[in-house]
Amino acid sequence: MRRNKARRMRILIMIHSEDIEKVYAFGKHKNVEYGALREDLKTYTMEEIGRHDNKRTGIWIVYKHGVYDITDFVEKHPGGSDKIMMAAGASIEPFWTIFANHNKDDILSLLESMRIGNISESDAKSHSADDNDPYRNEPQRHKALKINGQKPFCAEPPASLLVESFYTPAELFYVRHHLPVPEIDLKTYELELAVEENTQKVLKLEDIKKYPKYTITSAVMCAGNRRSEMAKAKPLKGLSWGVGAVGNASWSGARLCDVLNDLGIKEDDYNHVQFEGLDLDPSGTYYGASIPISRALDPRADVLLAYEMNGQPISRDHGFPIRAIVPGVVGARNVKWLGKVIISKEESPSQWQQRDYKGFSPSTDWNNVDFSKSPAIQELPVISAICSPEPMDKVPVKDNKISVKGYAWSGGGKKIIRIDVTADEGNTWHTANIVAQDSAAKEGRHWGWTIWNIELPVEPKVKHAEIWVKAVDSSYNVQPESFKNIWNLRGFLCNAYHRLEVELIQ
Amino acid sequence: MRRNKARRMRILIMIHSEDIEKVYAFGKHKNVEYGALREDLKTYTMEEIGRHDNKRTGIWIVYKHGVYDITDFVEKHPGGSDKIMMAAGASIEPFWTIFANHNKDDILSLLESMRIGNISESDAKSHSADDNDPYRNEPQRHKALKINGQKPFCAEPPASLLVESFYTPAELFYVRHHLPVPEIDLKTYELELAVEENTQKVLKLEDIKKYPKYTITSAVMCAGNRRSEMAKAKPLKGLSWGVGAVGNASWSGARLCDVLNDLGIKEDDYNHVQFEGLDLDPSGTYYGASIPISRALDPRADVLLAYEMNGQPISRDHGFPIRAIVPGVVGARNVKWLGKVIISKEESPSQWQQRDYKGFSPSTDWNNVDFSKSPAIQELPVISAICSPEPMDKVPVKDNKISVKGYAWSGGGKKIIRIDVTADEGNTWHTANIVAQDSAAKEGRHWGWTIWNIELPVEPKVKHAEIWVKAVDSSYNVQPESFKNIWNLRGFLCNAYHRLEVELIQ
Repeated sequence: MRRNKARRMRILIMIHSEDIEKVYAFGKHKNVEYGALREDLKTYTMEEIGRHDNKRTGIWIVYKHGVYDITDFVEKHPGGSDKIMMAAGASIEPFWTIFANHNKDDILSLLESMRIGNISESDAKSHSADDNDPYRNEPQRHKALKINGQKPFCAEPPASLLVESFYTPAELFYVRHHLPVPEIDLKTYELELAVEENTQKVLKLEDIKKYPKYTITSAVMCAGNRRSEMAKAKPLKGLSWGVGAVGNASWSGARLCDVLNDLGIKEDDYNHVQFEGLDLDPSGTYYGASIPISRALDPRADVLLAYEMNGQPISRDHGFPIRAIVPGVVGARNVKWLGKVIISKEESPSQWQQRDYKGFSPSTDWNNVDFSKSPAIQELPVISAICSPEPMDKVPVKDNKISVKGYAWSGGGKKIIRIDVTADEGNTWHTANIVAQDSAAKEGRHWGWTIWNIELPVEPKVKHAEIWVKAVDSSYNVQPESFKNIWNLRGFLCNAYHRLEVELIQ
Repeated sequence: MRRNKARRMRILIMIHSEDIEKVYAFGKHKNVEYGALREDLKTYTMEEIGRHDNKRTGIWIVYKHGVYDITDFVEKHPGGSDKIMMAAGASIEPFWTIFANHNKDDILSLLESMRIGNISESDAKSHSADDNDPYRNEPQRHKALKINGQKPFCAEPPASLLVESFYTPAELFYVRHHLPVPEIDLKTYELELAVEENTQKVLKLEDIKKYPKYTITSAVMCAGNRRSEMAKAKPLKGLSWGVGAVGNASWSGARLCDVLNDLGIKEDDYNHVQFEGLDLDPSGTYYGASIPISRALDPRADVLLAYEMNGQPISRDHGFPIRAIVPGVVGARNVKWLGKVIISKEESPSQWQQRDYKGFSPSTDWNNVDFSKSPAIQELPVISAICSPEPMDKVPVKDNKISVKGYAWSGGGKKIIRIDVTADEGNTWHTANIVAQDSAAKEGRHWGWTIWNIELPVEPKVKHAEIWVKAVDSSYNVQPESFKNIWNLRGFLCNAYHRLEVELIQ
């Protein structure tokens, strides 16, 4: 039900480049008075709150430690009831990171007048049950996420929400785990640095923080983003991702090259840098991946041992306390909960490096596939997607135009230089406006995504349109037209034109 | 007529990776005895020799300083008369760089027995006529080149010959000039280094040679390669290139980053490095282009001030004495006859940087084009081509298969990881064999091209086939399917699937 609501949502606020800093700054300067713990009120679990997501049970939301009953307010919400209902039974905070104009005394004061109770982190965890379930201690997730897999947890935000902010709030950032989320105590946390089998050094979080701190903007994308479209061409194996298995954040941390230089690593002596996460499979094997050593040691590649996401400590779901951020490279190599870095002549032996995240010819099937014959996916190709409208939406036509919005991105630091949109199967291509892009990015280091929009001309009087989008990056690489000839058995690299049908309200 | 011969030519010798060094080494150790000047013999101009390209006039060829009458030998040539006739009226040397098994005493001795005269460089130039023609002193070109434009000279080799060697001989390397070839005297030649308007230093060739010498393998490609195919989708402006506006060579010289570091250039203070050639337009303006300073200063980008091509001093047609080699970047920025390097906050003001080599949307035409809105082409996208057979060739079918051969390449140092070929419109894709690739290239620095071949299954009993090829690079970028949606008014970036019809001899 919530998903349908998300689809129906029409977000009217447009983001302009100059607003981005404002939106982003909001996260840093939260008002500490509103939403504080109030000992005179009852404490609720997230499970109880989650049930209050409709008029019959009452509509509750969470802001910081506060629980609020907004049942009577929903219809009065100036931005429309649809939008506020996306937070029903859950936290309002990630939405306000996007709709930053809510961060005002009068609004917070109005909210506080609807206060009914408290929520605490321990309460939020208390409803976890089975002690033998390795997933018993997963973090609480936002209800707006569309879940593609529960164990391991895999989820993406609603498409139309995704492109409303240049920086994706952590709570709405897609999650693609491979194993249970590890519980990490900073008191005992250590990052081990090894050359082949030999440990060279062990760093505590505070040791990593002693290195110069770098902040970059980088999108992280799953290799299977948009897989649900490729699956329509021919069945394949993999989670059915929509267009939301991507997010854009600012990441801060130490540069991997600085840490490796301290070890005296010489590029010519090795070939790869392996990462091990602290997430364990039932056999006791850690998640693993690797990148070429030339990327790890290249200061221009901006590879980070990141400890902050959007200016806050990285959350459990995104790799607390340290995540490898390898900008321009597939999410699978941006290893979360980083426990070990191994400088080696060899690639990571992990199944995710050797027998999973690789591309194949459309004629390769499960009978003839040889994973050793294909290179592990590193940089991703150019891609784009329409996020608003969503498929089969009813779209109002004004002056023979409809509003279309989406994202575009390319791996390897290549800037998006043009986005073309058509409503007549490519007979006329219209160039979209670039709404937001990382203007501080250096040449060849455009790790962040691009948000675009367009008022797209459509045929007068028709009741239906098919919209296509394609992007061009600074190497003038373009997207392939359709999925048939890039289909692959694991459903990766789904960067054909995004094609989407809508109904027109003329 | 020669072009038809070239098309009919079937070259049977296959190149294996281990042969490449041998082929290449040939150029370095030429036998100096055969082909030497012989004072007892008459001297001929290239014009006279050029007329002797058929049985009626007699068939002459040139080897070093020697002129040879091979009229009676042609039919006896063990490799077939078609192949040897490609050199009729011209030099045999570039072919022997490819078919290196000719470099033997018995063959050279046999050739010398057909000796009739001498050719000298001054003779070769003597037939140039009009003193007012700025093109009067162009170098002599090999007759096998297919000429797309005489003034300025633009020509490409026959496709089937192109992929017979991993390193393209200089005489058969495509030529794309914008202006007359300048005459440069090493006694007066200087390379000027400037920061904005201020000259910092002047280097003679010997000063450049004092820097550490680096040798890299790099393809150079014209932005308009394969334009003739795009022009079929819709008319456009530009020379009608086939698949041969690309070549692959080894280049040796000083690294630009070493030269710029000596000037104390700091990357953050500037944005671009401009190159000026010594080729002048009628208004007295030099050819110009620029690259981002981050590329110029990055040692991993391997930008060279090159003075050797395939182990020999760069020839006049390819930029003697110094050519900027910017690997992975469009030919137009690999400036020949380099006269000046300018470190600047601005891009080159040259028309070729500002109003020519740029990409546009398919809906941009000459009425609405705004060159300031599009970035200058730098790195080129992934591309591939079938070189043998050529279009409408009659191809023998053996065991229901035909032999297909071609090249693939991607800009920006990205390695070609797979080449897919189909004879049934993509219902079945067959992965080609990689015949030659630069195995010494470092990660992310695959500047050279890839030669591939395949024994491609075709339908039994049919008399016609359409072959398609597409390549995948290490960023998993792929080619677009067709030209319609990448068409642009100048006909650049023509990297749609190469589709080619042939007749089958079953």
